[in-house]
Amino acid sequence: MVLGFVMFEEGLERRAANHVPLTPLSFLRRSAAVFPEKTAVIHGTQSWSYAQFYKRCRRLASAIAGAGVQPGETVSVLAPNVPVLLEAHYGVAMAGAVLNAVNTRLDAKTIAFILNHAETRLFIVDAEYMDVARDAIAISGRNVTTIEYHDPEQAGSTSSFGHGDHTVDYESFLQKGDPEYKWRRPADEWDALSLNYTSGTTGEPKGVVYSHRGAYLNSLGNVMTFGIDARSVYLWTLPMFHCNGWTYTWAVTAAAGTHVCLRQIERDRVFTLILEHGVTHMCGAPIILNMLVSGPTEARLPHTVEVATGGAAPPTSILSAMEALGFSVTHLYGLTESYGPSAVCVWQEEWEALNLQQRGSRMARQGVNHIMVEDIIVADSQTFEETPRDGTTMGEIMLRSNTIMKGYLKNGAATDESLQNGWFRTGDLAVRHADGYVEIKDRSKDIIISGGENISSLEIEEALYSHPGILEAAVVARPDDKWGETPCAFITPREGAALTADEIVEWCKKRIARFKAPKTVVFDELPKTSTGKIQKHLLRERARSLS
Amino acid sequence: MVLGFVMFEEGLERRAANHVPLTPLSFLRRSAAVFPEKTAVIHGTQSWSYAQFYKRCRRLASAIAGAGVQPGETVSVLAPNVPVLLEAHYGVAMAGAVLNAVNTRLDAKTIAFILNHAETRLFIVDAEYMDVARDAIAISGRNVTTIEYHDPEQAGSTSSFGHGDHTVDYESFLQKGDPEYKWRRPADEWDALSLNYTSGTTGEPKGVVYSHRGAYLNSLGNVMTFGIDARSVYLWTLPMFHCNGWTYTWAVTAAAGTHVCLRQIERDRVFTLILEHGVTHMCGAPIILNMLVSGPTEARLPHTVEVATGGAAPPTSILSAMEALGFSVTHLYGLTESYGPSAVCVWQEEWEALNLQQRGSRMARQGVNHIMVEDIIVADSQTFEETPRDGTTMGEIMLRSNTIMKGYLKNGAATDESLQNGWFRTGDLAVRHADGYVEIKDRSKDIIISGGENISSLEIEEALYSHPGILEAAVVARPDDKWGETPCAFITPREGAALTADEIVEWCKKRIARFKAPKTVVFDELPKTSTGKIQKHLLRERARSLS
Repeated sequence: MVLGFVMFEEGLERRAANHVPLTPLSFLRRSAAVFPEKTAVIHGTQSWSYAQFYKRCRRLASAIAGAGVQPGETVSVLAPNVPVLLEAHYGVAMAGAVLNAVNTRLDAKTIAFILNHAETRLFIVDAEYMDVARDAIAISGRNVTTIEYHDPEQAGSTSSFGHGDHTVDYESFLQKGDPEYKWRRPADEWDALSLNYTSGTTGEPKGVVYSHRGAYLNSLGNVMTFGIDARSVYLWTLPMFHCNGWTYTWAVTAAAGTHVCLRQIERDRVFTLILEHGVTHMCGAPIILNMLVSGPTEARLPHTVEVATGGAAPPTSILSAMEALGFSVTHLYGLTESYGPSAVCVWQEEWEALNLQQRGSRMARQGVNHIMVEDIIVADSQTFEETPRDGTTMGEIMLRSNTIMKGYLKNGAATDESLQNGWFRTGDLAVRHADGYVEIKDRSKDIIISGGENISSLEIEEALYSHPGILEAAVVARPDDKWGETPCAFITPREGAALTADEIVEWCKKRIARFKAPKTVVFDELPKTSTGKIQKHLLRERARSLS
Repeated sequence: MVLGFVMFEEGLERRAANHVPLTPLSFLRRSAAVFPEKTAVIHGTQSWSYAQFYKRCRRLASAIAGAGVQPGETVSVLAPNVPVLLEAHYGVAMAGAVLNAVNTRLDAKTIAFILNHAETRLFIVDAEYMDVARDAIAISGRNVTTIEYHDPEQAGSTSSFGHGDHTVDYESFLQKGDPEYKWRRPADEWDALSLNYTSGTTGEPKGVVYSHRGAYLNSLGNVMTFGIDARSVYLWTLPMFHCNGWTYTWAVTAAAGTHVCLRQIERDRVFTLILEHGVTHMCGAPIILNMLVSGPTEARLPHTVEVATGGAAPPTSILSAMEALGFSVTHLYGLTESYGPSAVCVWQEEWEALNLQQRGSRMARQGVNHIMVEDIIVADSQTFEETPRDGTTMGEIMLRSNTIMKGYLKNGAATDESLQNGWFRTGDLAVRHADGYVEIKDRSKDIIISGGENISSLEIEEALYSHPGILEAAVVARPDDKWGETPCAFITPREGAALTADEIVEWCKKRIARFKAPKTVVFDELPKTSTGKIQKHLLRERARSLS
């Protein structure tokens, strides 16, 4: 050790006064102290101030601890975007437990797998999902105490009590808790905060573990990237069970903004809530954007609503339709393993001068690392050497960041494989442009190699989405004796649109290199995972089976 | 250890991919990558893009390492707000060394003390300060290599070369460095980043040590509190040698805003730069605000300029004059030990309805902890018990935060005394209002106890500052046989104002409790420290010696 280091270390160790474990729980405590009367949560006709919200979360923590859940044990929640799930984002961790928000679209068998894998001690379930929850518990064979939440805003929510199982009513459970409960911060900021299962298209779900530190930093990254402050009103169009709502569950609270809950995403309801509460920010997959711009023409919103989207690049046609309605769209990129957003397509001033098509192609890029992400590279999957920034050479996106998961629960092999050489390997293939912006060209498995040429199915899909008669499209490889593979397009037309395969192929040939145009076009509904992701592996199977 | 913790820890240890030491150096690297062509620094007719700024900082780091400075050793800089000092905020740490920005108002003897105490290896000095630097080195007896910076914007900057000492020209020094230098992040985010000596009114200066972690977090706290983004233009009216410019040296870079340097704070120059560069943000002590609103009437600025002030509450009269000019003032509170701002007088919506006087009294409060500060309390100095939130009971402000210093260099006793029981003791006496806002009533030593009643000298000063004929005022205790102590006011009148002591006393009696009015009024210039702080200990001596 160098002498200088000794001088700057001796007697200068971390102390309780100057080293506090980073945790998003601090956000709620502060917002409740600084803005006690400000509206924290709105849900239909109900709303809670920050002081009330904080008290409910402390009650929940107290009740969870009172129920015998030990620090480091798992509390699972199966609920849509209702207040109970938001409260669980604080109350569970305040009891020292780990939150596992379960995807509501999963089947009982998968949920049973999760309950067992996560070793769930307590299961909080929205009444709408009690049947699947009960089935899941039966399959799992676990002895789990279930807390049932009845949404007073939900007409026809029926009680399951008296079924002879271990079910307790959520509000009664909460009332048992102490609103002044002295919750403790995590002993170490690396302690687990939450557990999110990746839906995955193949194999068993993997449990992605988040730390308090990572969630704290990613939340603040969101605050800065998306410009959230105390005047912000955030509408929950993104499921909170997706990467803890991309950590906006904590970010909005950090800024003391207002959460607007939303049980079901219905177009009219979204527009109504935007106007009623002056919504300023929302997030969602491109399918949400698609929904907003489809249907009856809406008047332009009286104020700009910032929308962050991710999962896939928004097609130019949707971007322009969104802009016309008064939405300002930002394209983010991330994965469950990266606490949601890791990259953001940062707007550059000179883009103002571009036409819509050009802007659209810029905005389709995944972009650059957000402020909390140390590094993003596009590199060779074997050598980890960065690819040239030429906009054409493909490589794998890799991330290094405090906002990368601790790893996969009870899956050392998968953790080791994904966190290699100081990088998290995303498995997404991309190019890097001269300006440093990353653009995904394909998921590793989705690339189509035809006649020795790499074809990006995304590029074809972008061309297809620009067709006014196409609602949804997905392109996969179809085995071909001559070419090896050819692109095969599966298409759901818009209602009332009369499309032909020839017309679609011609449309593409006019827009992308001719050899990239689909050789096969199938009109059908697209199979999707519970999270709404198109299941390309099923389409690949169908493409293979085409005579 | 509980079983749950094992499950969430095993195989989930920190790795290079998911645990990166927090350091503000990351900000520059990212902004140079994302906004390479954007203007990072403006200094008179010169300016540098983020790509250029980053290269200069890497050159500096390379040159510092090349000069034999070891990681953990100190590089001192004596310069006003010119680019070299900004570059040192990155280049020094990129070489693994510790930055010691020296107050330019200090005398040679004090600087000599600092050079020896900090064990300075390299001394970068602006040509204007070469004489005092050379004297300081002579007094210190150290063998220090000096790098002299010649400001091309500074008319009459003369070279000191050929004096036979170890002086090297800064630009030549820089040219020896490698612009692609592979700097290394700190091994541990707790490593020392900078060293700031508190000017103190008594005793030897204390060396406050900052960590990379603390600086990173406080910078981002500033970004969020002050709303800095890539469109922000920050004018350097606050000395960078004050708590590293309250960490705005790093915060502005984090947001990829533009730094506008300023060698000397001259009123006309400030207004010119605001208009020329579209300045959006600046900071400064109340004396800066005072300067801006004094002198010839200015036209209202064409855009709002956010001004953060601290060190003392801005008097209402100055607040209203600032508002009239187009400045929006935010009141911050902090100390060198807290990386600058720790508390912020967060604006509450309901204050909009208040009249100027009422708003002024709200804004005079030090406020609440900013988002990165875990906690602020007002407590009994002995028992650490919180005082009631009644707006009248005095206690000591205490802070707990990742943004509290590592401690005082080579001063374990002072470190232990200030970081006690999990709190940093500020030594500032305050009350806490029912809404949780903290308001300083006096520095521990500045309280006047008269007839058993505590009198805040600040309250009297606020009354005095509201008088149109008073430019500056300071109140201290004067020993009194009957009352123990009485308030004694030292006043500098505005030019042309004819004031009498009786008139001043009457003015106060109308505004504050009569017993709090000064019993003695002295018209004179006020003695100040090198940082512009009024030296109350000298005034106390004078008050004692009054016959």
